[in-house]
Amino acid sequence: MADNASVTIEDIRAAEKRLAGRVVRTPVLSAPALDEAAGGRILAKAENLQGTGSFKLRGGLNHVLSLTEEEKTRGVVAYSSGNHAQGVARAAKLADVPAAIVMPADAPEAKRERTARDGAEVILYDRETESREEIAGRLAKERGAKLIPPFDHPLTIAGQGTAGLELTEQAAEPIGQLIVCCSGGGLASGMGLAVREAYPDCEIVVVEPEGFDDMARSLASEQLETNTRRGGSICDALLVETPGHLTLPILRSLDAKAVTVTDEEALAAMAFALTELKTVVEPGGAVALAAVLTGKVPTKGRTTAITLSGGNADPAMLLRALKTS
Amino acid sequence: MADNASVTIEDIRAAEKRLAGRVVRTPVLSAPALDEAAGGRILAKAENLQGTGSFKLRGGLNHVLSLTEEEKTRGVVAYSSGNHAQGVARAAKLADVPAAIVMPADAPEAKRERTARDGAEVILYDRETESREEIAGRLAKERGAKLIPPFDHPLTIAGQGTAGLELTEQAAEPIGQLIVCCSGGGLASGMGLAVREAYPDCEIVVVEPEGFDDMARSLASEQLETNTRRGGSICDALLVETPGHLTLPILRSLDAKAVTVTDEEALAAMAFALTELKTVVEPGGAVALAAVLTGKVPTKGRTTAITLSGGNADPAMLLRALKTS
Repeated sequence: MADNASVTIEDIRAAEKRLAGRVVRTPVLSAPALDEAAGGRILAKAENLQGTGSFKLRGGLNHVLSLTEEEKTRGVVAYSSGNHAQGVARAAKLADVPAAIVMPADAPEAKRERTARDGAEVILYDRETESREEIAGRLAKERGAKLIPPFDHPLTIAGQGTAGLELTEQAAEPIGQLIVCCSGGGLASGMGLAVREAYPDCEIVVVEPEGFDDMARSLASEQLETNTRRGGSICDALLVETPGHLTLPILRSLDAKAVTVTDEEALAAMAFALTELKTVVEPGGAVALAAVLTGKVPTKGRTTAITLSGGNADPAMLLRALKTS
Repeated sequence: MADNASVTIEDIRAAEKRLAGRVVRTPVLSAPALDEAAGGRILAKAENLQGTGSFKLRGGLNHVLSLTEEEKTRGVVAYSSGNHAQGVARAAKLADVPAAIVMPADAPEAKRERTARDGAEVILYDRETESREEIAGRLAKERGAKLIPPFDHPLTIAGQGTAGLELTEQAAEPIGQLIVCCSGGGLASGMGLAVREAYPDCEIVVVEPEGFDDMARSLASEQLETNTRRGGSICDALLVETPGHLTLPILRSLDAKAVTVTDEEALAAMAFALTELKTVVEPGGAVALAAVLTGKVPTKGRTTAITLSGGNADPAMLLRALKTS
């Protein structure tokens, strides 16, 4: 096991106990057609079938359930335009805690609606003139509410890591390699710790969208590197500015490798998931599968686990994926 | 429990033991958005995630594994243009038994390819001039091979029933109603027997495509009724001529009700499954969900289990569903 003080396997086990019966024990999907394409066995942990359509519910709920009773009455605050917003809103609903989510005014209406549907107060801001960090920070201070960070917090990382514990319990065979969709690195570091505990020789690979390879460059330079672009990829769930202060050291301690895939490769993986795995993944949730299908990560003759990390693709994006294929 | 000599709960339990570890224990999907639309709790048994993309693998494999060693060497024969073909081909592959599948020459290439990919011998016939029953019967006789019927056989019904046993094991709450996609009635009768054993008051409802309501009319008249049309619905998996000699009495003994849905309603349910359940169902696999979403089966204030019976939709059909929504 990686010796890292910030998050331990015990933290992940504690999170699993806390989340038991409250999150979906997501299935592990497989298909002969996928094994054939990979030349090896592929196990796909389907976090697209998690509550709110992504793994974000795990970390958010682990965080909310760890609050004191007094903290719970004061509520939680988060900022996100996507999956983290929905995950925290649902977590707060499940724990009966008030939630305020700061979202850009130009966020897709479907995402705003889904967040509000779970009872969260949605606070809109103007991306051009306002800072969401400032707004969320001010709100948290005024209300005495807890800010729930999207990835760089031990409770978040431990929560995401429960997907890895489940995977090791579900897999009928040893896992030689784990390929994870990567933005800030919360899912990759949490799952990496959990899977490495069960299989000490398991290799960890993170996958980022082309042009947003901050984690790859940070792993190489051993310091936090920043993306120059802020947008322009369809993998909207994976566009952070820079890795986390906690997640980067964990992934380094796990000796993680990194690859990138293009938007077109993510679209082709979405189409493959629809036709061969009968499942819906969003572009950012398809990058690990894309890394397998393109052969960018060698998978021949071994057992590889991948994450399908999110499924919140709108109909227009599904149409685009189907037309690409 | 229904007292019916042809298939008993013990047959289904024996099938479950036989299939253990060889078929996918498919997940039960749920979503707050679906519960809200239904006004009650909905549990969706996702047989679209079964091997070969439909429940047909269960019955086919139960049949193949029940052959004697001598019968296994002589192989199996089946006729089908779709899911049963793929299910029997995969079953034969898993049991290392030769299989010949009689398919119409105009069957979609994707379905022929998937069947052949599992090592089955695909024998094409002309729908206009030849009879698939005759061809399959002749083949079976020549080779001494076993014909695997698509629904009207105790081993097939018991195999499909294992989906019902799993469902009762997976559901955390009593099931008050079971809604099943229905063609020949193999899945409905098998699952009905299994779920009724656990919940004696559970109501059973079968759903057919409009214009192909042979089961509804047969349940009403208490004899086998026939559809006048042979094609013309997109629910290609549900277009049999008439119910089975075994399945009809079982469904009558379970006091099953029946409703129909239109192609447009099935398409809308497919779109709902894609966006809210993140899962791919084919038109025929979406009719039980459609019966819920249209309110044709009352679901308010109760727990209803439904089947998503198949996921073999080609990209063109997915595009059509997304454009309908």
